[in-house]
Amino acid sequence: MSSIKLPRAVTDLVDSFEKLPGVGPKSAQRLVFYLLHNPERELESFAENLLKLKKNTVLCEQCHNVSETNPCPICADESRDDSMLCIVEQPLDVLALERSDAYKGRYHVLHGSIAPLNNIGPEQLYLHDIVKRLEGVAEIVLATNPTMEGEATALYITEYLTQASVPTTEIVMTRIGHGLPIGADIEYADGMTLSRALEGRRKV
Amino acid sequence: MSSIKLPRAVTDLVDSFEKLPGVGPKSAQRLVFYLLHNPERELESFAENLLKLKKNTVLCEQCHNVSETNPCPICADESRDDSMLCIVEQPLDVLALERSDAYKGRYHVLHGSIAPLNNIGPEQLYLHDIVKRLEGVAEIVLATNPTMEGEATALYITEYLTQASVPTTEIVMTRIGHGLPIGADIEYADGMTLSRALEGRRKV
Repeated sequence: MSSIKLPRAVTDLVDSFEKLPGVGPKSAQRLVFYLLHNPERELESFAENLLKLKKNTVLCEQCHNVSETNPCPICADESRDDSMLCIVEQPLDVLALERSDAYKGRYHVLHGSIAPLNNIGPEQLYLHDIVKRLEGVAEIVLATNPTMEGEATALYITEYLTQASVPTTEIVMTRIGHGLPIGADIEYADGMTLSRALEGRRKV
Repeated sequence: MSSIKLPRAVTDLVDSFEKLPGVGPKSAQRLVFYLLHNPERELESFAENLLKLKKNTVLCEQCHNVSETNPCPICADESRDDSMLCIVEQPLDVLALERSDAYKGRYHVLHGSIAPLNNIGPEQLYLHDIVKRLEGVAEIVLATNPTMEGEATALYITEYLTQASVPTTEIVMTRIGHGLPIGADIEYADGMTLSRALEGRRKV
């Protein structure tokens, strides 16, 4: 076996890339050798952007969304509907819902979903402080993902709020609608989606 | 359309990731939000490793391999066979050949292959200085990849060396062997590989 090794600076950066989700040893190596052919200025700006990520962002103390200000622009916006609280898994979900332009209430970002297989329980999420945000709320929209983890999280939240003696008679709990996405083909839809779409049918 | 945007620090880092090959906007976003949940120390070490990459490495002036020293350990090793020169596309190819323990000669790293579709011509590669390295060389092994670009590059090198009046009567030009990889199944081999494997058959 030859003793020729990659330079330490190369393997160190390969290690950094390998820690990212979905990046294996081979693609980490490929990324590093790609960067090796980049001008030094590019690498410096990449490094700066990494350092800026945490320094220039903050989690909003109210909704826990990623923001430049605390409270975040949505929490600070007085024109929004205080009677609705939408619970989502990730900051990107807030962005997607905002793009839809169909929701004008407040948000609460959990930063994940309950996933026992990945050692993520309710304690690892911004979940238990939802109770502190219920003043004046008439509806809680559970907009976690329609995945096993998202469903479990939605269920957990419902039960948690009941046990925390939140007056669920006054607050309506809703789950975001499931069914066929716009532009989809019934022919190719999976059974679970179709069964949810049938359950969620509406009078025309 | 809502005016809610991601913080600048987030979009800047998304941009940096998007520049990497094979990373689209969606996966760049996912990587950034993953990093957002990492401790700051991790981000700092990632940034340090990026900055170290070019500062602590150098391209060997002789073979152009990535190294910590110039000349690189292989070029500096006097026990290696000066009569063989193996031309490869990438530094990782050198590493793979070294792992095989089947080659004891010198290397020459092109840092790419001729790919007109990506605007990479012979001028963008460390190709024309091969002629300066032929003293005492008895065999040139063309070990570019068995892809369209690799084949074109091997062909170009052969023609270039002939035109540069390299005494090709004294220097044998060989192409690395093509055929079935060890452990492969003839049933599943593609036609091109099988035809190359038949061409390269040997007496037992």
